Amino acid sequence: MKEIGIGLLGFGTVGAGVVAGLQQNGDLIAERLGVNLVVRKIADVDLERDRGVKVDPALLTRDAVAVIEDPRVDIVVELIGGTGVAKDLIVLALERGKPVVTANKALLASCGGEIFELADRKRVDLYFGASVGGGMPIVRVLRQGLIANQVDAIHGILNGTCNYILTRMEKERVSFEAALAEAQKQGYAEADPALDIDGLDTAHKAAILASIAYGFFVPLEHVYVEGIRNVGEQDIQYALDLGYRIKLLAVVKRHGTKVEVRVHPTMVPLNHMLASVSGVYNAVMVKGDLAGSTLYYGRGAGREPTASTVIGDIADIARNLMAGAPRRFKALAKASHRFKIMEIGDVETRYYLRLTLLDKPGVLAQITSVLGEHEISLASVLQKEAATGAYVPVVIITHRAKEKQLAAALKKIDVLPVVGARTVKFRIEDHQ
Amino acid sequence: MKEIGIGLLGFGTVGAGVVAGLQQNGDLIAERLGVNLVVRKIADVDLERDRGVKVDPALLTRDAVAVIEDPRVDIVVELIGGTGVAKDLIVLALERGKPVVTANKALLASCGGEIFELADRKRVDLYFGASVGGGMPIVRVLRQGLIANQVDAIHGILNGTCNYILTRMEKERVSFEAALAEAQKQGYAEADPALDIDGLDTAHKAAILASIAYGFFVPLEHVYVEGIRNVGEQDIQYALDLGYRIKLLAVVKRHGTKVEVRVHPTMVPLNHMLASVSGVYNAVMVKGDLAGSTLYYGRGAGREPTASTVIGDIADIARNLMAGAPRRFKALAKASHRFKIMEIGDVETRYYLRLTLLDKPGVLAQITSVLGEHEISLASVLQKEAATGAYVPVVIITHRAKEKQLAAALKKIDVLPVVGARTVKFRIEDHQ
Repeated sequence: MKEIGIGLLGFGTVGAGVVAGLQQNGDLIAERLGVNLVVRKIADVDLERDRGVKVDPALLTRDAVAVIEDPRVDIVVELIGGTGVAKDLIVLALERGKPVVTANKALLASCGGEIFELADRKRVDLYFGASVGGGMPIVRVLRQGLIANQVDAIHGILNGTCNYILTRMEKERVSFEAALAEAQKQGYAEADPALDIDGLDTAHKAAILASIAYGFFVPLEHVYVEGIRNVGEQDIQYALDLGYRIKLLAVVKRHGTKVEVRVHPTMVPLNHMLASVSGVYNAVMVKGDLAGSTLYYGRGAGREPTASTVIGDIADIARNLMAGAPRRFKALAKASHRFKIMEIGDVETRYYLRLTLLDKPGVLAQITSVLGEHEISLASVLQKEAATGAYVPVVIITHRAKEKQLAAALKKIDVLPVVGARTVKFRIEDHQ
Repeated sequence: MKEIGIGLLGFGTVGAGVVAGLQQNGDLIAERLGVNLVVRKIADVDLERDRGVKVDPALLTRDAVAVIEDPRVDIVVELIGGTGVAKDLIVLALERGKPVVTANKALLASCGGEIFELADRKRVDLYFGASVGGGMPIVRVLRQGLIANQVDAIHGILNGTCNYILTRMEKERVSFEAALAEAQKQGYAEADPALDIDGLDTAHKAAILASIAYGFFVPLEHVYVEGIRNVGEQDIQYALDLGYRIKLLAVVKRHGTKVEVRVHPTMVPLNHMLASVSGVYNAVMVKGDLAGSTLYYGRGAGREPTASTVIGDIADIARNLMAGAPRRFKALAKASHRFKIMEIGDVETRYYLRLTLLDKPGVLAQITSVLGEHEISLASVLQKEAATGAYVPVVIITHRAKEKQLAAALKKIDVLPVVGARTVKFRIEDHQ
């Protein structure tokens, strides 16, 4: 049987997973593919560490450039991550005309424009299925299966750490801090969890999905981001009382020639499929004008799931190489119609507001009057029992309003003498 | 821009959807694909009926063979359905070396062996994404994205009519007959609903998914099938009380060298993602040894969703043709290791049994004694209030047992003088 040579850059968790996956299921994959995928070289700075997988020491090298330049390497797989050396190596591989598979979301979200451009100029395959959603085939589906669709909206739970924390906060009725500590103990959160819990990891993925869906590179800076540090235990319970669950969502939506791309804690109706996604699992719902709503669910991270997707990408390129047809796809098919990113101030949603108000007559009237001045109308009001002292939490659900109107209203509300603490705000995504 | 010519066989609901989809999003698709998809000929027996889509009358013909033989037709799309003329036309197209897209599940489930074989011998592309799951990309995912995985199990809700009926029965607390009538009124069920509600449509799809997953043609006759006619209102409520929801599931599972392929009403734990799939939606969960559990959800039928998948398949073949690389995939990649279908009698699950028993002391002991003789042990027993008369419903959940043991036990139980009606049985699929 013919062979396709793989050169691996980065022998960390996912790199070891790819090697282990090919060892475990190599015969099965060859049977399905009609060609053997053979790892020819592996570059890493650390050649000593035990990765729990056996490899011929002769494959290992510290020289990543030599891996790319090895004529027996047909496909370069970049699993180093980050925006430093990984970028230089991908650029080198593409320059040399070698197809690249990468799982590097940070790189694509920050320098995707340049890298997509280079791959297209060189007419080389660039696959990045594992950059979003681990074992979930969302990149593949958007690039291929849904090609007939104008994408109306994408709603995604794209970070397993955040989803685990929010699930624990609800189930165990614990604080954010306690749930984070638990996630760290379980190995679901890093010692420095900022990248996950502040929403940046989700924003990387949102930028990539928006880029594919709308055919232009959406740089990370254009994604509005809020993380989950401010989600309180009580908000999770109030949300449930109102029929919602709080999830960190990536929201990508088209409005005529504009596209919104935002990441923030979001209230999702309990009967929505995304509300059923718990623990470290990820899911994405895509609304297309023909397919309607479709959803993809799976493990968003981890050695084996990510390796599964990386090998799937390698297999696709191997088919192309075998058929003598490299670059069957553009890395990013550009739209002739140029969309603009909508300013967050122009985004319109419904809101959940938790106010901390003095418990005396006339106070709520002051609040609703300020909201009214900014043309924000109320859908419902829920007054909770006073916990301690003179202040009570009051929860308001608004009708649809623009972000900038709400921001202006809250600016006035939060300085009123009857308001005891900064108002907590979450956006609501209803069925649309 | 270059053009790829499409020849359509069958101008019914889906055929009209494909034409409408290409009209609506043709420019967008061409932009993404780098080639224009152009419908060159449409064959149907009825050239008069209004399909709600405008086409040049010169494209229409009653002569399907002429469509296949037209040199301007590069891809043949079969949307006639059924196992009659559709088969002859697909065979003709493949014989002539023309790539084929089909949504014909009945044909593939009954004659897939022959058709896959022919496509492979002729080295011609055969895509059948819309044969399972409408707008849900399950065929694509199994053939491509999950290629690195040994498939451990597939659990699917694959018939929207049945899922709609079961959802209505639960939500509105109505009988099967009332829910079926409602489904017919809403256009979700045919005047003759047998193909759906007796499980045959789901069995077609189960056979196709099992064939792809295990690399050998699984003929329809080897799929064990039970429909939903026997699901009672009370069973749905008892299931809920016990923490389960009843769904018509296709279950495909590997045990060493054997594979089970079965379709029947199944109790699914409420916290399982499949339990959240309501109404006409479909979903499939696939458990792979690397990817873990992934789930795909969407509309399993309907004009636009099915057209979305058919156009996705056409686009893939168009890419192949443009790249000069037809038959990038085998229609069915054969496994060297030959799996066997497990007899239903050897299948092991847990069971829900609803017995109708005389309400007097010692009766339950008679039942448990028969079960014990057949090595079936009880996980829980739920005795309901007597509705009318001397008989009461008693619900038993068993531990895991073989189908043939249970069948033997029920044969004895149902003739006991204390048993007032045939025992109702549902299989349980727990998290595994």
